[in-house]
Amino acid sequence: MNFNLFSELSYEVYSPTTFVFNIQAARSASQKILKESLLITIPLSTEEFELDEVRFIKLHVDKPMFFTLTYNAEVEVDYKIIDESSLFQSIPLINFDKKIYPYLFPSRHCQSDKLEKLALKEFGKYSNEYSKVSAITDWIFNNIDYISGSTDAGTSAYDTVVQRQGVCKDFAHLGIALCRALNIPARYFTGYAYQLGTPDFHACFEAYLGNQWIIFDPTKMVPINGLVKIANGKDAAEVAVGNFFGNTICTYMNVQSTTSGNFIPYKSEGNVIQAISY
Amino acid sequence: MNFNLFSELSYEVYSPTTFVFNIQAARSASQKILKESLLITIPLSTEEFELDEVRFIKLHVDKPMFFTLTYNAEVEVDYKIIDESSLFQSIPLINFDKKIYPYLFPSRHCQSDKLEKLALKEFGKYSNEYSKVSAITDWIFNNIDYISGSTDAGTSAYDTVVQRQGVCKDFAHLGIALCRALNIPARYFTGYAYQLGTPDFHACFEAYLGNQWIIFDPTKMVPINGLVKIANGKDAAEVAVGNFFGNTICTYMNVQSTTSGNFIPYKSEGNVIQAISY
Amino acid sequence: MNFNLFSELSYEVYSPTTFVFNIQAARSASQKILKESLLITIPLSTEEFELDEVRFIKLHVDKPMFFTLTYNAEVEVDYKIIDESSLFQSIPLINFDKKIYPYLFPSRHCQSDKLEKLALKEFGKYSNEYSKVSAITDWIFNNIDYISGSTDAGTSAYDTVVQRQGVCKDFAHLGIALCRALNIPARYFTGYAYQLGTPDFHACFEAYLGNQWIIFDPTKMVPINGLVKIANGKDAAEVAVGNFFGNTICTYMNVQSTTSGNFIPYKSEGNVIQAISY
Amino acid sequence: MNFNLFSELSYEVYSPTTFVFNIQAARSASQKILKESLLITIPLSTEEFELDEVRFIKLHVDKPMFFTLTYNAEVEVDYKIIDESSLFQSIPLINFDKKIYPYLFPSRHCQSDKLEKLALKEFGKYSNEYSKVSAITDWIFNNIDYISGSTDAGTSAYDTVVQRQGVCKDFAHLGIALCRALNIPARYFTGYAYQLGTPDFHACFEAYLGNQWIIFDPTKMVPINGLVKIANGKDAAEVAVGNFFGNTICTYMNVQSTTSGNFIPYKSEGNVIQAISY
Repeated sequence: MNFNLFSELSYEVYSPTTFVFNIQAARSASQKILKESLLITIPLSTEEFELDEVRFIKLHVDKPMFFTLTYNAEVEVDYKIIDESSLFQSIPLINFDKKIYPYLFPSRHCQSDKLEKLALKEFGKYSNEYSKVSAITDWIFNNIDYISGSTDAGTSAYDTVVQRQGVCKDFAHLGIALCRALNIPARYFTGYAYQLGTPDFHACFEAYLGNQWIIFDPTKMVPINGLVKIANGKDAAEVAVGNFFGNTICTYMNVQSTTSGNFIPYKSEGNVIQAISY
Repeated sequence: MNFNLFSELSYEVYSPTTFVFNIQAARSASQKILKESLLITIPLSTEEFELDEVRFIKLHVDKPMFFTLTYNAEVEVDYKIIDESSLFQSIPLINFDKKIYPYLFPSRHCQSDKLEKLALKEFGKYSNEYSKVSAITDWIFNNIDYISGSTDAGTSAYDTVVQRQGVCKDFAHLGIALCRALNIPARYFTGYAYQLGTPDFHACFEAYLGNQWIIFDPTKMVPINGLVKIANGKDAAEVAVGNFFGNTICTYMNVQSTTSGNFIPYKSEGNVIQAISY
Repeated sequence: MNFNLFSELSYEVYSPTTFVFNIQAARSASQKILKESLLITIPLSTEEFELDEVRFIKLHVDKPMFFTLTYNAEVEVDYKIIDESSLFQSIPLINFDKKIYPYLFPSRHCQSDKLEKLALKEFGKYSNEYSKVSAITDWIFNNIDYISGSTDAGTSAYDTVVQRQGVCKDFAHLGIALCRALNIPARYFTGYAYQLGTPDFHACFEAYLGNQWIIFDPTKMVPINGLVKIANGKDAAEVAVGNFFGNTICTYMNVQSTTSGNFIPYKSEGNVIQAISY
Repeated sequence: MNFNLFSELSYEVYSPTTFVFNIQAARSASQKILKESLLITIPLSTEEFELDEVRFIKLHVDKPMFFTLTYNAEVEVDYKIIDESSLFQSIPLINFDKKIYPYLFPSRHCQSDKLEKLALKEFGKYSNEYSKVSAITDWIFNNIDYISGSTDAGTSAYDTVVQRQGVCKDFAHLGIALCRALNIPARYFTGYAYQLGTPDFHACFEAYLGNQWIIFDPTKMVPINGLVKIANGKDAAEVAVGNFFGNTICTYMNVQSTTSGNFIPYKSEGNVIQAISY
């Protein structure tokens, strides 16, 4: 399936500022970038770099100004549908690839170390990891209210458990924290979402099940096969859309994902519930 | 029923310190103090005062020393058994006695203002206030682990919701916070408990239902008719056993409640579940 | 000095809601209410009650509606100017009137129990309580940024110490918490402020020094002799302008304080720095 | 300089548990491992792996048992003394090597995003990054009390700013958070420390200044040239000494670092203050 991505970000810069952006579609086995462009309204040089498979763009603005960054891309996305039953078999932690272990540790917004008892009490009863993560996803959907503007960039899973409200990043952080609290590796997914409704980026999470990363979206706001990945990270602190170091404010953001293809929203059906991996 | 209370507290004082204690049995319509004594190992004058029905003892130590305070009392306690069905009728908030309103507000350890969504999601489904408070009590008992030493004096309901562990004061604080979040007045109860097992004071909470304060103990550790009240307060911050202002540490504590009577633990039976009010 | 107070609050009520307001000028030895009126745009009965010297108004709305509450008053305010040197003498805690002790305890937004080391390190060096409270007031003014909208109703002194931003209530809470952490009784002051600039209520705090409550305003936004007290409380949780129990939102607020008199802003001068008590 | 390292860790295992340890001396240009050994009291196979230059050991225990892990090593450590003045020149953020950027982001225990105002107010006045980090180090030393047992594994920089107490990891986390809040990359350092006094591992932090990582120890407990690095990470969550996934407790720990050489504690002298980089 091909998606046309568009994002536009405007900044009012008051003092010299270095920007590190994370808005480009990821390159991976299941994502092929057919074309892409990055435009900026003033003559500034941007530099792309890649770090642990995350694509960053850096940029320095040395005096007060206003600028707009526009990204356009056409991306071909494949995904695998995986039979749920193939995920029932637990992989012993000791056999994980070494790159997986850091996704068991707590991170800025995912204080899994404080959620162990809660996770065990709520989800310990499920017989396998896949069922646990599915139950976590449903629990978040049923118990947390999606309310725009109810949280800010500093909000963490610890708060969301108590306050029971948030936006997509908060849902993702709580999902990650609960998985890690059960010794299931989990990571943040930031991306573009088809049929999102609001002109914004989207976030959800992936859990490591059966030696692969399986995607879960506790907001249940968008078809899961309409996602285009920007990046994975331990949480939003590692893969924020835009980091800036200087006195600057973001004044405008527009994000769109469209397709000219015949999009059929993925639905798991009957008893054969299926998972998706990108 | 008569109970013999005993408490003994030792302090190592390093610098001039003022103490405000809250260890004496309350005087009330249902608690009659038959005799009581307060001993202190060194010649210091103590002064008793009462504030909002709470009995305090104050004491000033003007130089480094070690002392032990011992309280003995014999107290006759009555309690009312109230038919649950008489509590089903909700009293409109607007008709409360004015002294009740402050027990709807958040306090130091009971951040009810942050727990509104959680309380509504978990307990909003119950049809009356009595059922809600009963469900809160059961939920705490089932979802929070009683673990000695797992929390400290700074722990609040906000933390307990996440960390799912604590001691009697934490159970009480969470109960209070959840009630207030549902617009049910609730207050802290500190007292002596018969058959507690550990030589310590006990804490639980009261909810205002049907124009009276009904007692609930989410720890379910002791028979509820074996309690002797020391004081009520908005939470432990108002009625701490011992406040001291100065460089001092508490080095020893022993607390006992015994009876020579024939104690029959209260049990609600059959369909006629009953509540207790002191 | 006479002040004309005006406040107007509008609410959109979605479900039956009980309101408890706290907007009327306090009656006290130094505040005389010359006239006052309370208007409400729909025929609802309000009831006034007083609790611990705080004037509350309660009101029940039993079906969805929109209403506006308007308060007008003319109040004569006296204040005492107190020679700073008379405050240097410390009153031993043990000699306090019993009503003072609760103002030493931590409260919802003033976690003085967690700020003891900080308070001692920053302000322990000052030789008397008055100097300590003055230093606290100056420290808050110098170290916390007043930024409208930077905090919400759930913000506490614990947060403000870290995040270094807030509005008048946050400044007051931090002042109170730091005083209590140094064993100086402190309480919240909510009121009307002449020359405030924004159409809002104001908040500051009082510390108990030399057997009287002395007022301090760490925002330094208004002349301290232009304040008219609504109420004192342990913190904003006890004396919030408007509590409502039901599904309701406040849609509008306007607050004004004017005078036809010749207002001379109070300034402490020369070596004779002076304090104000109402 | 050669150091003999010794660490011994005992675990009581109650259920199948996977361990990931991080106790071996790092291999680097300035650290040469002359010999090392790892012993375990029962026949279990350990596997070493390296991830982002961190050496981990993993181990699975499949049934309840007690075991002790013992590490011995002899390590030759070199360090560079760097003239302070060479660090005065700021390197623009935009020119950093890409691997440096993640050390600007907040992490589990270092909520730099919440400390920006505090950092700017306290340390913004210093003219260069080196002076800022030195001032941060001194401020932590002067304002935080080192108190064993005063914090736990969940404590973060956010708490330490308020509570003003902690152990070496808390001092390090606060240093890191304050640096990042000022846009100075900073990372956690865990290691062995000569002359530490207590049989434990040590932690401090490194700041990225003049294109190199310079070491700072806000505890000032040990000579800075007596450190042997185990690992760097964003904070303790990434490089904890021992992670275990299962029902297990650590029952004993002993850590020692000795030298047979003539150890001369490093001191910066006169006006030529110097920094150390490993």
